[in-house]
Amino acid sequence: MFKINDNYLKLPGSYLFSNIAKKVNAFSEQHPEATIIRLGIGDVTQPLAPAIIDALHGAVDEMAHAETFRGYAPDLGYEFLRNAIAKNDFADRGCEIAADEIFISDGAKCDSGNIQEIFSLDNRIAVCDPVYPVYVDSNVMAGRTGSYDPLTERWSDVIYMPCTEANGFAPEFPKQTPDLIYLCFPNNPTGATITKSQLQEWVDYANRVGAVILFDAAYEAYISEDDVPHSIYECEGARTCAIELRSFSKNAGFTGTRLGFTVIPKDLKANGVMLHALWARRHGTKYNGAPYIVQKAGEAVYSEAGKKQVTEQVAYYMKNAQTIREGLQAAGFTAYGGVNSPYVWLKTPDHMTSWEFFDYLLEQANVVGTPGSGFGPSGEGYFRLTGFGTYENTLAALERIRRL
Amino acid sequence: MFKINDNYLKLPGSYLFSNIAKKVNAFSEQHPEATIIRLGIGDVTQPLAPAIIDALHGAVDEMAHAETFRGYAPDLGYEFLRNAIAKNDFADRGCEIAADEIFISDGAKCDSGNIQEIFSLDNRIAVCDPVYPVYVDSNVMAGRTGSYDPLTERWSDVIYMPCTEANGFAPEFPKQTPDLIYLCFPNNPTGATITKSQLQEWVDYANRVGAVILFDAAYEAYISEDDVPHSIYECEGARTCAIELRSFSKNAGFTGTRLGFTVIPKDLKANGVMLHALWARRHGTKYNGAPYIVQKAGEAVYSEAGKKQVTEQVAYYMKNAQTIREGLQAAGFTAYGGVNSPYVWLKTPDHMTSWEFFDYLLEQANVVGTPGSGFGPSGEGYFRLTGFGTYENTLAALERIRRL
Repeated sequence: MFKINDNYLKLPGSYLFSNIAKKVNAFSEQHPEATIIRLGIGDVTQPLAPAIIDALHGAVDEMAHAETFRGYAPDLGYEFLRNAIAKNDFADRGCEIAADEIFISDGAKCDSGNIQEIFSLDNRIAVCDPVYPVYVDSNVMAGRTGSYDPLTERWSDVIYMPCTEANGFAPEFPKQTPDLIYLCFPNNPTGATITKSQLQEWVDYANRVGAVILFDAAYEAYISEDDVPHSIYECEGARTCAIELRSFSKNAGFTGTRLGFTVIPKDLKANGVMLHALWARRHGTKYNGAPYIVQKAGEAVYSEAGKKQVTEQVAYYMKNAQTIREGLQAAGFTAYGGVNSPYVWLKTPDHMTSWEFFDYLLEQANVVGTPGSGFGPSGEGYFRLTGFGTYENTLAALERIRRL
Repeated sequence: MFKINDNYLKLPGSYLFSNIAKKVNAFSEQHPEATIIRLGIGDVTQPLAPAIIDALHGAVDEMAHAETFRGYAPDLGYEFLRNAIAKNDFADRGCEIAADEIFISDGAKCDSGNIQEIFSLDNRIAVCDPVYPVYVDSNVMAGRTGSYDPLTERWSDVIYMPCTEANGFAPEFPKQTPDLIYLCFPNNPTGATITKSQLQEWVDYANRVGAVILFDAAYEAYISEDDVPHSIYECEGARTCAIELRSFSKNAGFTGTRLGFTVIPKDLKANGVMLHALWARRHGTKYNGAPYIVQKAGEAVYSEAGKKQVTEQVAYYMKNAQTIREGLQAAGFTAYGGVNSPYVWLKTPDHMTSWEFFDYLLEQANVVGTPGSGFGPSGEGYFRLTGFGTYENTLAALERIRRL
């Protein structure tokens, strides 16, 4: 008789955003008259930029003719895209990353969920708390996290690095030594970030203890301050200890178009085995590439017109984030983030729990946000709002919140 | 110090098609004048059908305007596509499969590689020999296959079901009882298939021993004979023992566009736990949906115009397969398949090994095929050619082979 992977049964409840969707759907059914404003999930709302649309139409036309039709893509992704990434995201920032160290994928969520596969089940992971749930849940599914304590909401074999007001939402080196360290800066959900010299300390630490940093830089396009690194490879020594995960979702609006990439430098080895080779094997065996038309769309993000257009789009969302942060502060809330990130992280008022505040905001203001506790126990008492709505909706939501 | 997943190191050599690509590239560099005809990898060559192209352009235009822009897709895929599949692929064939038992993905290779994750590592897999390498390799990576014996080319914990001339390339029930049974009909690589009553026996067997059948029906569009099932759900009792994997790659030319789906009936349970719920959790946590524009392209495959056009495309490839089979037989080869499948499975002449014949065909005829031994030890002495080339190239390749 076949048996299931029991680790799945250890996962408490269902996935955060599915839960939110269920609650919102239930509320909508009961209150069909309510105009709900969604500032919860990190989904974009602006249409794809004209340069990207042109590239998509062009690529679709190529698929219509035998001479230009494209079948299976190269395992790592098309060179035209990997070259554009290597130049724009790395060489132009002084980072030494070759095109063949870049693996094109259908998004950072998949990559951040799958990357743990190339590591031993014995490895100990360290995560920030609060944290993007995929890092932990994918390790739970693999059986790497031990047992769950519903009281503390913690896994016995996971090392938590609390990110709180006290430490400016920047993690500190953990007491136990981790093997894999998930870092995400600019951070989801707190909107906080760390300076280049702070990140350099993490790189030095990882090299010293023999850990790998899984660096999620999905929000790098939102960095507005000079001293904040866009890539971990801006730090010395990162090539021997860091994997970087990148996305086209937030900088170019690809949440429904699906494109991302992972960087694994060839210098990153365990006992002489390149992690690059393992990930290449996984790509070759369990993945079949992002669509050609989507890879062409990705290339257009790096064209002169594309760069200008997506920069304007990011500025639009950042104006929203600023509106949220300043609006909340004017309404008497304590709010963080929103400077180098589309996320604003607010303290719930009156000692409400995160989910109490979720219900309160949904019912009283018809505004949807994300409960901070959904990202981990240190997120309790916080709430995430995002700048990804329209400007009009963002203004309207803040007006409703002001009136509460 | 971090450790890698050692199971990856057990994998012998690199992935079959990567190996072939390397050999072909090396030959091309040495013989730049040679016109190589590729009938090796199962990649299509015909452009996307006009109805699909129209749908893609339409969806791209939707992505260009805020009112019609789409961000994150629903976890299981868009309803418009799942409804079209449920009707056309299942209801119209008398199969009872609901739209919410269908999970849209970016392709059957990913699904067939990932599906093993929801099962226990203790489960014993059974595979046909020869077999599509992804089934075995993905289980090797997970640590489910024991140790590899390079002499027999077999894994200690895998149950092999030889498919040979003697049994008409149809597997027999294994002596050891498996937990997971991978079946692919019409078969890749042999091009063979089994009748509905034969498949019914497998369904009865699986229900009897408590096994799950992972049924890969990627080539169902190529079925030309009446008594061959298009879906395992045509068999009674399949809802309690079978998962079906489907692809848009071969019926509609989506190898470079990426779309597929997996069906998990809600009746398929282990100790009361629905496998459907586990796969839904995996989708929600480690995947983020196929692109909206690609899902719209998939919907167009089921439009009246789309159905007509993709049927013509399949007929085109089947004419190639017939040309190959008949051409080989006329040249004195023994060849199978090519009736309900785009694949022709030929016996190598003069006791050549599969790789010897690969080199011989590449060097003497500049034709690329796939060595049968790459699919497992019982594939030794066989060679796969595919009908996915152009008709002109297929004719030319057969003419070169005839002259050998």
